[in-house]
Amino acid sequence: MALIVQKYGGTSVGTIERIENVAEKVIGWRERGHQVVVVVSAMSGETDRLIGLAKAITPRPLPREIDVLLATGEQVTIALLCIALEKRGCPARSYTGSQVRIITDNAFNKARIQDVEVTAMRADLNAGRIIVVAGFQGVDEDGNITTLGRGGSDTTGVALAAALKADECQIYTDVDGVYTTDPRVVSEARRLDRITFEEMLEMASLGSKVLQIRSVEFAGKHNVPLRVLSSFKEGPGTLITFEEAFETEPMEKELISGIAFNRDEAKLTVLGVPDRPGIAYSILGPVSAANIEVDMIIQNIGHDGTTDFTFTVHRNDYERALEILKEQAASLGAREVSGDTKIAKLSLVGIGMRSHAGVASKMFEALGKEGINIRMISTSEIKISVVVDEKYLELGVRALHEAFELDKAA
Amino acid sequence: MALIVQKYGGTSVGTIERIENVAEKVIGWRERGHQVVVVVSAMSGETDRLIGLAKAITPRPLPREIDVLLATGEQVTIALLCIALEKRGCPARSYTGSQVRIITDNAFNKARIQDVEVTAMRADLNAGRIIVVAGFQGVDEDGNITTLGRGGSDTTGVALAAALKADECQIYTDVDGVYTTDPRVVSEARRLDRITFEEMLEMASLGSKVLQIRSVEFAGKHNVPLRVLSSFKEGPGTLITFEEAFETEPMEKELISGIAFNRDEAKLTVLGVPDRPGIAYSILGPVSAANIEVDMIIQNIGHDGTTDFTFTVHRNDYERALEILKEQAASLGAREVSGDTKIAKLSLVGIGMRSHAGVASKMFEALGKEGINIRMISTSEIKISVVVDEKYLELGVRALHEAFELDKAA
Repeated sequence: MALIVQKYGGTSVGTIERIENVAEKVIGWRERGHQVVVVVSAMSGETDRLIGLAKAITPRPLPREIDVLLATGEQVTIALLCIALEKRGCPARSYTGSQVRIITDNAFNKARIQDVEVTAMRADLNAGRIIVVAGFQGVDEDGNITTLGRGGSDTTGVALAAALKADECQIYTDVDGVYTTDPRVVSEARRLDRITFEEMLEMASLGSKVLQIRSVEFAGKHNVPLRVLSSFKEGPGTLITFEEAFETEPMEKELISGIAFNRDEAKLTVLGVPDRPGIAYSILGPVSAANIEVDMIIQNIGHDGTTDFTFTVHRNDYERALEILKEQAASLGAREVSGDTKIAKLSLVGIGMRSHAGVASKMFEALGKEGINIRMISTSEIKISVVVDEKYLELGVRALHEAFELDKAA
Repeated sequence: MALIVQKYGGTSVGTIERIENVAEKVIGWRERGHQVVVVVSAMSGETDRLIGLAKAITPRPLPREIDVLLATGEQVTIALLCIALEKRGCPARSYTGSQVRIITDNAFNKARIQDVEVTAMRADLNAGRIIVVAGFQGVDEDGNITTLGRGGSDTTGVALAAALKADECQIYTDVDGVYTTDPRVVSEARRLDRITFEEMLEMASLGSKVLQIRSVEFAGKHNVPLRVLSSFKEGPGTLITFEEAFETEPMEKELISGIAFNRDEAKLTVLGVPDRPGIAYSILGPVSAANIEVDMIIQNIGHDGTTDFTFTVHRNDYERALEILKEQAASLGAREVSGDTKIAKLSLVGIGMRSHAGVASKMFEALGKEGINIRMISTSEIKISVVVDEKYLELGVRALHEAFELDKAA
């Protein structure tokens, strides 16, 4: 008998029919002898509906009251799922975040979980009940309702799994696992049986938005085995686990797990700035002061006492960032400021590349063969990212998928 | 400076625009120097929508989970009202039933309030905040969410007013007070400036459904002055107060406060049953065992060793009650069982009639003059009810309104 925490997102509980399907699924696990704790999101569309009500009053509603408002979304779902479970003769009990006592800090709208009380849940589990918990919400020390921010239900699932020392935290979503890349771009994309937490973090932050990053970090920190599965399709999904687990496995680990990509970014370049200490801060300081997040930053070695400085931002921030740079250009002594919104970022992600120098050159070779010019390069421990012209995105992803034979299981 | 508890029903908070109107109203009271605690219902239609979701799963959803579900309705309203108040620069704080700690028993769907904790609310009031509390809901000793049953928001308002020793509990609704009778039937119907709790109880239970009976009882028990006002129209409304208050007033109290009526009932008669002890129980026992509520019961003196026994039930229960009586008729030794659904009940209500024997005869005279035959009569301390043929309802109400000069203030 295992203790399993399952999380079902908004789409999985989006209609009464789907809530009944979730009930069937949960009962299936129970009948196989497992204890099950279910975490649910608000029915899809509900959170937007509630935010719409608040915004109809004012564009800047009070954060505390937004949390009171939004917390109702998940509360509706827990009640309905329990009703669906009991209808099938399966004893169940719903818990709001406050009722569990999922204690968070008091940062409304983006609270962080500090503690989870498990006594009541354990008693219910031991009494043979399914427990259904409202995701995304908690309560601060003063009894105020808090929410964890969008997608926070994943984090609730992981936090409950950690607190209850569950055997597995299953995240049910509308995809049946983590793929080597987006199957809409590469039809040969393959579902991974497993992926490490670190790879998953890189995959998620690079645009394969299967899981909320925070929940993956949280799972890694608390050693919670996480599995991504489909609510709508049977299958083993993808297990997200620790690197150590792989090392004890006898099989050879593939070098590359997957290819992430992103076309939400834009590139900005300041040309011919004086190559002196502090110049990077002079350029990025005003950008960051305007609350614009910067992703890749590249500065190559200078020549003739000047250097070129390039960075990427979200496309929505491009115009504003460009304006700021142009204002700064004179005082920086820059020759020119330019930018490009028609770019795409491709990233190879793989825990195995740490010890393999050949990955980067193989990547560049594959892109070069297709005539794709690389505009920027950035590397980390387990990923290599390149920026190319946007029109090459699909071609580049397919070329890399083929070159690294990602369609074949290792 | 007074401490005022205001309750706004579902219609009063039915749209964003109406919630903003309530915010304006509340701020008006605050600007006149009062401390204000606001109790709100779910936006009109929301409770039905939520029940619809549950019933789409099963016709008999779990009572515990229904309360978890329904409690979200008021939670949405408190958040939106606080957002509307803060938008106008008025500090406000929302409280769910659990957050106040409105402690109830654990009778889900129809819980009764046992205690209200006031410490946190007092601190917020003293800090100059408006307090906005979710009506209709509480929490039991084990932390389960409970609801007080439909219309329970009135009870929440009264309970808070009692616990906080408020100067007045104002119930905002879509009528601007309690009238001498339904203005749709008698155009001369007059708004009463005040009415006693006892009269209000009789008026409410007889069909003038301005306030939930439970909340009136609760207010009477805890000496909370209650005022019914309109959310949509300025005016003093009707103050519901204690008989003692009237007695200290110098003015002459009118005999009759109002005329209530009801066409939801049906009449059943068992003719010619043996006039012996226990016969009433033999007739009503099986009816009550079938969970049919009985309103008026009349048994006149018998003759020739037999008597006739008549009672009224809700029209929805008529067929079933008739069936039960027919089954019993033989064993009771009854000569005949008959019934009539085309009846109406008219009631004169007034605390003043206690000491005035002439009221009944004046009533019967007024009805007789219009050729209205009286089928049943029943009296209590402060009301006289008669059953007449349904077709005479409007005529009867108008005749009585005129005879007792209810259009004129005393």
